[in-house]
Amino acid sequence: MHLFDNLDSGNGYKVRLLLAQLGRPYEWTNLDLDAGASRTPEFLKRNPNGRIPTLELDDGTCLAESDAILFYLAEGTPLLPMDRLGRAQVLQWMFFEQYSHEPNIAVVRYWMSIAAARPRDSVIEARRNAGYEALDAMERELAEREFLVADRYTIADIALYAYTHVAGDGGFDLSRYAAIARWLDRVATQSDHVQITA
Amino acid sequence: MHLFDNLDSGNGYKVRLLLAQLGRPYEWTNLDLDAGASRTPEFLKRNPNGRIPTLELDDGTCLAESDAILFYLAEGTPLLPMDRLGRAQVLQWMFFEQYSHEPNIAVVRYWMSIAAARPRDSVIEARRNAGYEALDAMERELAEREFLVADRYTIADIALYAYTHVAGDGGFDLSRYAAIARWLDRVATQSDHVQITA
Repeated sequence: MHLFDNLDSGNGYKVRLLLAQLGRPYEWTNLDLDAGASRTPEFLKRNPNGRIPTLELDDGTCLAESDAILFYLAEGTPLLPMDRLGRAQVLQWMFFEQYSHEPNIAVVRYWMSIAAARPRDSVIEARRNAGYEALDAMERELAEREFLVADRYTIADIALYAYTHVAGDGGFDLSRYAAIARWLDRVATQSDHVQITA
Repeated sequence: MHLFDNLDSGNGYKVRLLLAQLGRPYEWTNLDLDAGASRTPEFLKRNPNGRIPTLELDDGTCLAESDAILFYLAEGTPLLPMDRLGRAQVLQWMFFEQYSHEPNIAVVRYWMSIAAARPRDSVIEARRNAGYEALDAMERELAEREFLVADRYTIADIALYAYTHVAGDGGFDLSRYAAIARWLDRVATQSDHVQITA
């Protein structure tokens, strides 16, 4: 397998973390996104949406979207429930992550700690407020259980850990989220955990 | 089953369309979102993220996020591939839909044809440009195949049909997308198809 990735990306980190925990070897390419490396005609054949992470399988088939890649890789492992409802609940949290969490928490982190320029303050504040709403939803759930789904560590936890644990880079104050803090510790102490940058 | 929904929502329509095509009976409640009906303490127990569609199963378990609900309902039917790669490819397009398509195409439609007030023009234009990028990605894929995955109609097509076929409500010009136009016709002529509003 060959992972097309970028080291600044929490979406890419999800896949790196899962591959480490599954003990799967892979080749790796860090694409220069600012130079348009994910939008070349060659790369668009791998992913018509021109984004990383994109995973090229050994037969040349490519798979895109971080959470779809997690689902593919985790099939048949303890990190994805076998039952229909458990799998759907994992997907519920992964769609929550891509719709309500990442566009706010990851994007504000990007503006505050990676990008060369920031949008106007009102734009940042609107995203930050929506990010806090996503954290509120996680806190409500994690106050009731140790992991997001099935009372054990799954790819739903990996998907949401990726940008939650670095939310402080975007100026989010996590000190008000006690249940999230305990969950972050639980995720970070799973075997074969790796950090967001090696 | 009981579907908590809103008639203006394309995300809710995805679930209504699939339930019709599967011939599954269900109870249905139209929530007044402007009145905060999805953010009451009672509803937050059903979905901590306070959004529709949310599906309450017969045992009282609730499932949220439209595309997770589609995946749950389609398991074991011809609308979801049985093989691991096919399932992951369906998810790839559904995550694309929630990250790159819906926040632009559905949100601009909402501003232009449903909301009481619109944001400033530059905000609308940024979303419209991103929406056209999503349509470009779909056009690249659909120029090569009749349906998004597995050469047959699946829940990936339902997920992307919902807001693509009403993109004109948001001022998107679909006439430049020949492959998308043919695909829209293919989806609309599947058996037991229902319209976005009954």
